[in-house]
Amino acid sequence: MSVLNLELIKTVDDSYQIEIGFSLEEKLVEDIKAGLLGGIKKFAVVTDSNVKDLHGDKIVDLLESAGYMAKIFVFEAGEKSKTRRTKEYVEDAMLEAGFRRDCAIIAVGGGVVTDLAGFVAGTFGRGIPFINYATTLLAAADASVGGKTAVDTPLATNLIGLFNQPKKVYIDVAAWKTLDMRQLRSGVSETIKHACLADKEFFEYLDEHMEDLLNNDKQVCEHVALKNCSIKYKVVMQDERESGLREVLNLGHTVGRAIETVSDYELLHGEALAIGMAAMAHLSAELGFMTEEEVERVIGLYKKAGLPVSIPDYIDKEVLVKKLYTDKKVKNGQLRFVIEKGIGDIATFGENVYAKPIEEELARKIIYMI
Amino acid sequence: MSVLNLELIKTVDDSYQIEIGFSLEEKLVEDIKAGLLGGIKKFAVVTDSNVKDLHGDKIVDLLESAGYMAKIFVFEAGEKSKTRRTKEYVEDAMLEAGFRRDCAIIAVGGGVVTDLAGFVAGTFGRGIPFINYATTLLAAADASVGGKTAVDTPLATNLIGLFNQPKKVYIDVAAWKTLDMRQLRSGVSETIKHACLADKEFFEYLDEHMEDLLNNDKQVCEHVALKNCSIKYKVVMQDERESGLREVLNLGHTVGRAIETVSDYELLHGEALAIGMAAMAHLSAELGFMTEEEVERVIGLYKKAGLPVSIPDYIDKEVLVKKLYTDKKVKNGQLRFVIEKGIGDIATFGENVYAKPIEEELARKIIYMI
Repeated sequence: MSVLNLELIKTVDDSYQIEIGFSLEEKLVEDIKAGLLGGIKKFAVVTDSNVKDLHGDKIVDLLESAGYMAKIFVFEAGEKSKTRRTKEYVEDAMLEAGFRRDCAIIAVGGGVVTDLAGFVAGTFGRGIPFINYATTLLAAADASVGGKTAVDTPLATNLIGLFNQPKKVYIDVAAWKTLDMRQLRSGVSETIKHACLADKEFFEYLDEHMEDLLNNDKQVCEHVALKNCSIKYKVVMQDERESGLREVLNLGHTVGRAIETVSDYELLHGEALAIGMAAMAHLSAELGFMTEEEVERVIGLYKKAGLPVSIPDYIDKEVLVKKLYTDKKVKNGQLRFVIEKGIGDIATFGENVYAKPIEEELARKIIYMI
Repeated sequence: MSVLNLELIKTVDDSYQIEIGFSLEEKLVEDIKAGLLGGIKKFAVVTDSNVKDLHGDKIVDLLESAGYMAKIFVFEAGEKSKTRRTKEYVEDAMLEAGFRRDCAIIAVGGGVVTDLAGFVAGTFGRGIPFINYATTLLAAADASVGGKTAVDTPLATNLIGLFNQPKKVYIDVAAWKTLDMRQLRSGVSETIKHACLADKEFFEYLDEHMEDLLNNDKQVCEHVALKNCSIKYKVVMQDERESGLREVLNLGHTVGRAIETVSDYELLHGEALAIGMAAMAHLSAELGFMTEEEVERVIGLYKKAGLPVSIPDYIDKEVLVKKLYTDKKVKNGQLRFVIEKGIGDIATFGENVYAKPIEEELARKIIYMI
């Protein structure tokens, strides 16, 4: 018997910058000219059928004008495109177009595009660099911080993927103007959640500027994007592998995700989350972590954003209670909730423990309250 | 415009051990019991139709006897299974069987199995640990050092994949007994190449013990496996991202790969490589890096291993010359060869330059010589 020990210890620097502004296509190409990606001269712009005309083509044109080889790869907009088949389609189209290891991907779009394109980049030629150009409020945080990329499979959401950090993220708040109002409100839902779990001042800012945000006021949008990213960064930075603290980002999601599924995706993620946040607030009050007044403030802000805060009639509440058990926080068959403490803070239940076991009876009681 | 700088610098320790021995199934399970993979209790044993009965089932049985949950996932043996579709099949079968993030993969087989299973492990749940249990001489080096995992696509070989390091590698030299002789000789071809590029003493050892190696002498096999790994480790360690030195592993491959393709895969990779090494040796002599006697020694050792050293009649030499240009070392339309210097060393052509531009006329001359 022989043994060989391989020592493979290295320092990895995945640092990058998030730039937030109003129409950043030119800035993106300037950065590339200034050497953001070293000597790379070939770019695959990956986008969806909604965003192609709005931003994708423009970025390709600007890259070509600057003397680069650029080609657009488009797939159909929507969550149902987040599959291994779409990944395969993009890969084959890139190979067909002569792309090999000496290229980079620019993902232009919302969360589906950045999740998928970041995954493609992670395995194309065993890893090529990529940039996210985020065009939705939801992607402003999701595509920008955390490095999570993935596709869905028939049996599991987001379970095939990679941790893969972009070289830079651009958040174009001008693009939010083109979102349909329901999509925008859905994005606001996660923003309010961020404020609830980490930043009372930001909560008050949102309360004051909700209308400006929904009206695409440039300054308000930029501030909101920045706050979204910095809150998520603060959380994720301390816990890259989702072992503990990162669980707090699940605030409101235990009930929220279950409602989303039981509604058969009639409700958008952010809408279901708003209802889940209302449930969580009531639960928090039951446990003594929030006053009734604070509960009303949280629910009030969701209402101000035009989001639902009670369970639609067509949803069977007993089915919903059962569905709670598919939550990824369930441990040994026991429901676990992340709980807000006051406004802008999270309750803890021991060192690195951010979720509390909750009896089914209490969960049921809350669900029948909203 | 706002900017947020994310600092993501970390130290990654991918160190691991290669254990070489005769029938290591029990040792593998002992190591797991001793905590090799922490508290993981669920194992997906990924293997192919050839290796399932020989080693896969045994490992599953041993794991189950030790109180672990283990399940075998089998795909059809052969290079043509190294596809995204097979990856998808294994993923879906694992999900179907209830595997989520809290599991590990044990890859049992040759290079196709370890390449594919290592890739599955890299993206399942955004990365789960894996172990390689290598059962072929070829995999002894390929699956053991370098962290390359990949699948093929219709348009490109090994271009969709990941760098992903196993937690441990077992090389079971007893398994070489079950290889068919042609496969074993093909594996020996890469071993001789390793000796040629890095270790004169090992070259002499092979010359002396070739028969014992082909007869599966335990001690000789273990020594050969160890040398294979340590030579590759020495090269790869200095150049993880294939920017320079790693190119030397391409010795003999410029002509070798071209012959493999032009033969329409009638020739095994190792057989084509043997012919490519003969071509390279003649080229080296032409350039003054090897004596005629050294050329004869290299060719003689390949012959002793029962490998071909001249181009079969059915191959059109002009087609072969053309095919050379698909080599990945081609730069700006110019052929480039890695050149052996004497026995056990590599010629260099400047700092970090390990391949020499060769005129087509010279390449043609060599091809007509063998």
